Amino acid sequence: GYSSLVRSVEGLAGAPEWPALRAMLPEVKGRRIVDLGCGFGWFCRWAWEQGAASVLGFDVSQKMLERAVASSDMAIEYRRADLEELNLPAAAYDLAYSSLALHYVNDVGRLFSAIHQALAPGGRLVFSTEHPVLMAPSKPGWSIDAEGKRTWPIDCYFIEGPRTTDWLSEGVVKYHRTIGTTLNALIAAGFTLNHVEEFCPTPEQIAAKPELAEELERPMFLLVSASR
Amino acid sequence: GYSSLVRSVEGLAGAPEWPALRAMLPEVKGRRIVDLGCGFGWFCRWAWEQGAASVLGFDVSQKMLERAVASSDMAIEYRRADLEELNLPAAAYDLAYSSLALHYVNDVGRLFSAIHQALAPGGRLVFSTEHPVLMAPSKPGWSIDAEGKRTWPIDCYFIEGPRTTDWLSEGVVKYHRTIGTTLNALIAAGFTLNHVEEFCPTPEQIAAKPELAEELERPMFLLVSASR
Repeated sequence: GYSSLVRSVEGLAGAPEWPALRAMLPEVKGRRIVDLGCGFGWFCRWAWEQGAASVLGFDVSQKMLERAVASSDMAIEYRRADLEELNLPAAAYDLAYSSLALHYVNDVGRLFSAIHQALAPGGRLVFSTEHPVLMAPSKPGWSIDAEGKRTWPIDCYFIEGPRTTDWLSEGVVKYHRTIGTTLNALIAAGFTLNHVEEFCPTPEQIAAKPELAEELERPMFLLVSASR
Repeated sequence: GYSSLVRSVEGLAGAPEWPALRAMLPEVKGRRIVDLGCGFGWFCRWAWEQGAASVLGFDVSQKMLERAVASSDMAIEYRRADLEELNLPAAAYDLAYSSLALHYVNDVGRLFSAIHQALAPGGRLVFSTEHPVLMAPSKPGWSIDAEGKRTWPIDCYFIEGPRTTDWLSEGVVKYHRTIGTTLNALIAAGFTLNHVEEFCPTPEQIAAKPELAEELERPMFLLVSASR
């Protein structure tokens, strides 16, 4: 399951996209932070260590929250919630953060609106999500030719909606959306787009971990910064 | 060559993405329009027929411009220019439009800045360009399996820069950029993103032209609306 993933064991340091996502964050010190899909709480703890004024993490998994609480600094608050139905108080946060959770949400327009009203004016939403090129295919996987050259065959890009995979556990459902759909949902919710990045490992990352080189072939994660 | 393409013969009606792009346009009547990469002038004539206050079309191809002038209404102005080096007067236009020309431009950041300063406050840039998923692959083309199922194998997504193809004529050079690079270049030039769409044919379009169904498998064009 999740708990054996490198990013679950090593935390932020085990997530190759973290340096890129961190670079997109506003100042965290003194700010009110909400983490949507906080998992084991790695980001919450990081934000607290940076001097955040308050940190609140939501996750749908009771098990993950229990581990988050167990390894946590006192002052971080964790609550169980389904992002599909999340309600947040108005203008209560300066930064909403979400790492690789939004692709489990079907009605992302509703969630973006809930986040938008929950941010103070000028507040930021910074998130990562699976890139639609990764998620679209009816049979996601590398194709490797006789010379060992990898390609990532895509199809069904415009067939939005659920994708069921057996990644980590059986029958996991993610929701495929085009990049246009995601960005237009943000704009419709009132956000201004600040930065859109498709995660690409740096040469230094590839030197340290050569298997990351395949991530140059096709985009794996979509990283977005938007402001209210 | 270009002149035998359906879109060259039939004009806007022969371009399946035109209805989607048209839907992204602001009011054209009474506005000052500049078309970057106007080709045979189909959009310029359409804008003039809609009652634009002025229409100016740029293209690098003298031959195309000659045909544009020959089939043109009097009042449309055509000029030869390389978009790579285009300079425009300040705050002189209400709408900058570009159809499938920006993928020939290497330094798109420079061009976006030139366009930004050329728009009146509130002015719009609306453009289409080849989608990076279409352009990225080292060997672009469909892969068709034994059952006839099509996939579009991608690789080299993060290897930005020139792509040389023999489409229409030998050695045509286009410039591959990720979606993030294109959108961040717009934001860096001062634009606010209004709408990002990946062209997908409608059911009606597919019913009328069944070969368009393959465009559901992978994105072909990127359509963007941004404002100053």
